[in-house]
Amino acid sequence: MSIHTNPVRGTRDILPQEMELRDKLQEKILQIYRSHGFERIETPILESLDLLMNSDGGENLKMLFTVLKRGEKLDVHENSTIKDLCDTGLRYDLTLPLSRFFANNKNSLQFPFKAIQIDNVFRAERPQKGRFRSFKQCDIDIIGEETQVAEIELIHTTTKALGEIGFKNFVVRINDRRILSSIIISAGFEPEEVSSISIVLDKLDKIGQDGVAKELIEKGYNEQGVNDIIHSFTTLNEDNLDKIEGDESVKNSLLQVIRAARELSDGQYEIVFDPTLVRGMGYYTGQIFEITYGPYGFSIAGGGRYDNMIGNISKESIPAVGFSIGFERIITILLEEQHIAQEINKKVAFLYRAEEDYVEIMKKADEFRKLGYMVTTLVAKKKMNKQINALKDSDYSYLFVYGKDEELRAIES
Amino acid sequence: MSIHTNPVRGTRDILPQEMELRDKLQEKILQIYRSHGFERIETPILESLDLLMNSDGGENLKMLFTVLKRGEKLDVHENSTIKDLCDTGLRYDLTLPLSRFFANNKNSLQFPFKAIQIDNVFRAERPQKGRFRSFKQCDIDIIGEETQVAEIELIHTTTKALGEIGFKNFVVRINDRRILSSIIISAGFEPEEVSSISIVLDKLDKIGQDGVAKELIEKGYNEQGVNDIIHSFTTLNEDNLDKIEGDESVKNSLLQVIRAARELSDGQYEIVFDPTLVRGMGYYTGQIFEITYGPYGFSIAGGGRYDNMIGNISKESIPAVGFSIGFERIITILLEEQHIAQEINKKVAFLYRAEEDYVEIMKKADEFRKLGYMVTTLVAKKKMNKQINALKDSDYSYLFVYGKDEELRAIES
Repeated sequence: MSIHTNPVRGTRDILPQEMELRDKLQEKILQIYRSHGFERIETPILESLDLLMNSDGGENLKMLFTVLKRGEKLDVHENSTIKDLCDTGLRYDLTLPLSRFFANNKNSLQFPFKAIQIDNVFRAERPQKGRFRSFKQCDIDIIGEETQVAEIELIHTTTKALGEIGFKNFVVRINDRRILSSIIISAGFEPEEVSSISIVLDKLDKIGQDGVAKELIEKGYNEQGVNDIIHSFTTLNEDNLDKIEGDESVKNSLLQVIRAARELSDGQYEIVFDPTLVRGMGYYTGQIFEITYGPYGFSIAGGGRYDNMIGNISKESIPAVGFSIGFERIITILLEEQHIAQEINKKVAFLYRAEEDYVEIMKKADEFRKLGYMVTTLVAKKKMNKQINALKDSDYSYLFVYGKDEELRAIES
Repeated sequence: MSIHTNPVRGTRDILPQEMELRDKLQEKILQIYRSHGFERIETPILESLDLLMNSDGGENLKMLFTVLKRGEKLDVHENSTIKDLCDTGLRYDLTLPLSRFFANNKNSLQFPFKAIQIDNVFRAERPQKGRFRSFKQCDIDIIGEETQVAEIELIHTTTKALGEIGFKNFVVRINDRRILSSIIISAGFEPEEVSSISIVLDKLDKIGQDGVAKELIEKGYNEQGVNDIIHSFTTLNEDNLDKIEGDESVKNSLLQVIRAARELSDGQYEIVFDPTLVRGMGYYTGQIFEITYGPYGFSIAGGGRYDNMIGNISKESIPAVGFSIGFERIITILLEEQHIAQEINKKVAFLYRAEEDYVEIMKKADEFRKLGYMVTTLVAKKKMNKQINALKDSDYSYLFVYGKDEELRAIES
């Protein structure tokens, strides 16, 4: 049999060293989330194709992995559609499953419900460096709180988790979808045009003001209106927010969130109002946020309010806000920067001859384990020196050789 | 839109309380595994259909979830096969992915390689109480150790992990596939018949001696031979192992494992030689083990040596042994018995009026969090008494109300 041993296209194997880092980070993030009263839940990786395809997932719906029907004879013919062949798919995010979960289990949950989800999602993206078809997200959501205390709690908790794993000097950018709409509508455009104009505005940091203006005008939008939008965008700030039209309570709520988050930040990171923040997802209805870090051109966390999604699934309309840490991006940065505090290495290897009394050696190893060491017991090779050097080269701090006529003998490492 | 909110058939949502237990258990098991020198890895949930379908997965191959091809126009017609439509599938166990992983990454791994895998696997089983289509396995494997120290280490580590999460008085049953074969062949049957006879013998604890004899004779096996097998089965023990034919080194190695495991058990659990142990998987080549617990009719852990699997994938033949804890079964037992040591409940709720200075309250909550409490901050409802009673009914030990004209006020719980 000749089988490719590499993982499926766009996925990857995770080796022990990275896995140890991932586990440590996840544990720290989870601990902070739990200490803030959030509760972890888990939903199945498979969701019904009905739920997935009727969701507000935008581009993600083009990247669904769908799973062949089970338990019935498939009706396969030339015109078979995906719905004829498949009835489930792999989730593309954790927000849609959370909304279904809440609708399904609300009678067993605290209300407001503060949820933690740390799990893999799947998107059939074109594979490229650093982008995978299966990746982990780290979400917290508050379901059932309509005031801005939900936003403040989410920002407070997420920034604390990032601090706990060693991130400093990041920037939390905050905006409100409704202010975005006001700006666009005040410039003379129709409510129906907000979404398509926003998609171009989202490219501001990639193609610049001129690029955005050019693209919008080429798409047929009125030049004066486009210039007005860009002017508002580049001059709007916390102090002149009253200049623009729109609901006062929206502006007040935004300012309250910014001020509270800043007060809670203790100067460890920056909180800014960023009128140019758009965020891709179609389902956001209110405030949106994103965290960017240092020289990296990408955000390491993002979220916002999505008050309509649960109402779309269950009959009840329920407010909700979420904030998601991009776990894979965090890992990429930490591996590149290697600025993780090295913990004291407590890896120990016990080498022994095959003919030794291994029960005694394992008992000895257990004594070390009780002291907090990680002890591996290994049968010594005939060429023991080569084996010892290999262990020294890897991260074993202590080696002990237990041989026929020798006592336990420590070898410096 | 009308969408079913229940999870996909055969899968389930996991609620916060169970999730907390699951996380605690997993952390404890992982900690023991790591302290014994095992290293955690992760493989993708998706594997190539080639790998899955050409594997020694027995019945599991009939329960594959397969995923529709991406990125190419599907050639769908009346005679389309699964291979025409799909090129990947969801893994049905963790042993096959581990073998692929090892073949793919061996140059970056310690050798012998001691692997931990804690992850979900997928089987389209007929859903029934307590059996799900997505479930978690907890595996350790030693790849590259041909002697019985691998078996001893795996038993030592697995039993310690079970002890750590509160299991006592379980029974570790050990057998060797080659002894099973010897018994069958000594009774006059052909080597080719061993596998089909074993499948019936595996039902001994369900249908009893008479049932097994009846079924084998009905299948056309010689009555005298069948009786001989059952006689050996029911009378064989550690002391008369030399009565049966077969390789002396096989018997010696089995006895050594039993004795070493017993010595390391410290009397906390039982180690027995069980000549009737068969285990379903086709890939086992040597010793096999299973752990049963108390009144439950099912095993909570199982494993064995599979020396040929990696050789089937890569060109190199490499010995391997694995031991897997059935995580879902452990959880089921612990939830039913509720004999988990209750840890001191440190859940605290802060209730405050919407008009209060929530920054101050969040800072106060942070002080409690520093002391190790899990603090949730909640806007007080108008009918606060109802809210307080609901929190008392759930597992909040301390409630604090922070109101307009009041100081922080504790309410006993």
